[in-house]
Amino acid sequence: MSEVDWIAVDWGTTALRAWIVGGTGTALGPRRSDRGMAVLAPEDFEPALLDLVGEALPAGRTVPVLVCGTAGTREGWREVPYRTVPCAPPGGADAARVATRDPRIDVRILPGMSQSRPADVMRGEETQIAGVLAARPGYDGVICLPGTHTKWAEVSAGEVVSFRTFMTGELFALLSERSILRHTLSDGDWDAPAFTEAVDAAIAHPARFAADLFALRAGALLDDLPASAARARLSGLLIGLELGAARPYWLGQPVILGGEGAQADAYTTALGGQGVTVDRLDATQITLAGLAAARGQLRQEGS
Amino acid sequence: MSEVDWIAVDWGTTALRAWIVGGTGTALGPRRSDRGMAVLAPEDFEPALLDLVGEALPAGRTVPVLVCGTAGTREGWREVPYRTVPCAPPGGADAARVATRDPRIDVRILPGMSQSRPADVMRGEETQIAGVLAARPGYDGVICLPGTHTKWAEVSAGEVVSFRTFMTGELFALLSERSILRHTLSDGDWDAPAFTEAVDAAIAHPARFAADLFALRAGALLDDLPASAARARLSGLLIGLELGAARPYWLGQPVILGGEGAQADAYTTALGGQGVTVDRLDATQITLAGLAAARGQLRQEGS
Repeated sequence: MSEVDWIAVDWGTTALRAWIVGGTGTALGPRRSDRGMAVLAPEDFEPALLDLVGEALPAGRTVPVLVCGTAGTREGWREVPYRTVPCAPPGGADAARVATRDPRIDVRILPGMSQSRPADVMRGEETQIAGVLAARPGYDGVICLPGTHTKWAEVSAGEVVSFRTFMTGELFALLSERSILRHTLSDGDWDAPAFTEAVDAAIAHPARFAADLFALRAGALLDDLPASAARARLSGLLIGLELGAARPYWLGQPVILGGEGAQADAYTTALGGQGVTVDRLDATQITLAGLAAARGQLRQEGS
Repeated sequence: MSEVDWIAVDWGTTALRAWIVGGTGTALGPRRSDRGMAVLAPEDFEPALLDLVGEALPAGRTVPVLVCGTAGTREGWREVPYRTVPCAPPGGADAARVATRDPRIDVRILPGMSQSRPADVMRGEETQIAGVLAARPGYDGVICLPGTHTKWAEVSAGEVVSFRTFMTGELFALLSERSILRHTLSDGDWDAPAFTEAVDAAIAHPARFAADLFALRAGALLDDLPASAARARLSGLLIGLELGAARPYWLGQPVILGGEGAQADAYTTALGGQGVTVDRLDATQITLAGLAAARGQLRQEGS
């Protein structure tokens, strides 16, 4: 790479990722660190960033650094107030400058988005939505971003009209790692029919959730329910429960799914079972595309 | 107390409780230990029991010890196979003798109950059900036993006809102690209207569960939702979700609630909101009553 033009940063609660972007727009990375927001005090952010990308910074010049994610929360590097929907996903002009000691970096943090009724927030996903709109200009429809806290957003005329967060991924992690079910679930295998059956069961009988969970344990004790089926079934129950409530988002709407790996596959399969064909985009790519769009806006303004 | 007649033991996954019962039927205790099944290998059970009650045992005589709970699981002291519903709750004749080194004790473990469709199991609660039937002879109706894994059981003509387990208590513990919501919830305070409102919301819209959870976090961030309201609301969402699925149990049926403390209060309030007046019995009392009933049966057989 000839020259460092700017640095793209996705700074979440548990991880930090950074890309070195050159003058031609080529991004190298991401470089990864486990120094997420949750383990850092405000004064720790600059050193953590420099540890990750400092050696790539040229001397005698200031490189723009654009950050999305929970680094912008009250407990993060600097609190950047939410933008309230309906509005366009925040761009470069909305980013807040944060003071640094090292003169080689000019750091700006993008705001998240909030919604009044029902109360909801996002930090980081607004940049992924901007990335989706960069990849699919003029897109009107729904964006689903599976994750620890899965987001469903409705986008129209370049604005986020409404969104809703589901703690589906966190529930899966808690139940599979810390509940009585942890001994019942395998680590890797996947039983596709068990998943589909559980999605349908949860959509049909959502209130049975806490009983369906215990039935995984009872099934293992009484019927030798295989761990692969139990794991797929837990995932299916959680995603099915979510799809039942998210129906107003996906029913009869175009849906872009921004995710990766097994989780995105599971959502794609579950939505397919409801007759929804998703347009899949890679989660990392849309994060980077959203940061690049924000950088482009700043460049136009001459910042 | 004149003489030790027998020892009643409730040996659960996380705790061990024992009562010293005299010839007149007076029970002293419970003595408590945190040496639950989960932290013990099979050879650890006898020493743990003797640590708790050994000094109360007379020399030169064998004292019957009757045990209920997860001590009877595969991972426990000795596996005692489940009795399958429909059947009467297991009694003294169903208890399995376990070999001990100390000649002063004669230990018998009561079996749990299982159900084939839907697959379900209980260990310990069958003894509470026997205790309810001892306290309310001839009772026909429903028994709700709130706990880590809340049980709903239908009892008719002295038999458990069917039952269903909900992981409600475990979900509350995981979410309040280990999820992102832990900072949003207070430890002690209680907002009664928030609880009732959440019960109603979960009954009306069970599928929204994972979104309603995140809304507690968003409400704290955006609307200064008080921690006392968030905690009551989490409890209400979980119990409401359960009541929605347990409706076939409580609708138009007499309901005995065997519980204690704030959890039993919460169930009583939630059921009251649905027009169900419960007959409340103390959880510890019905455990002891169930063990005493089993002991009485053994005595009649001359054991």
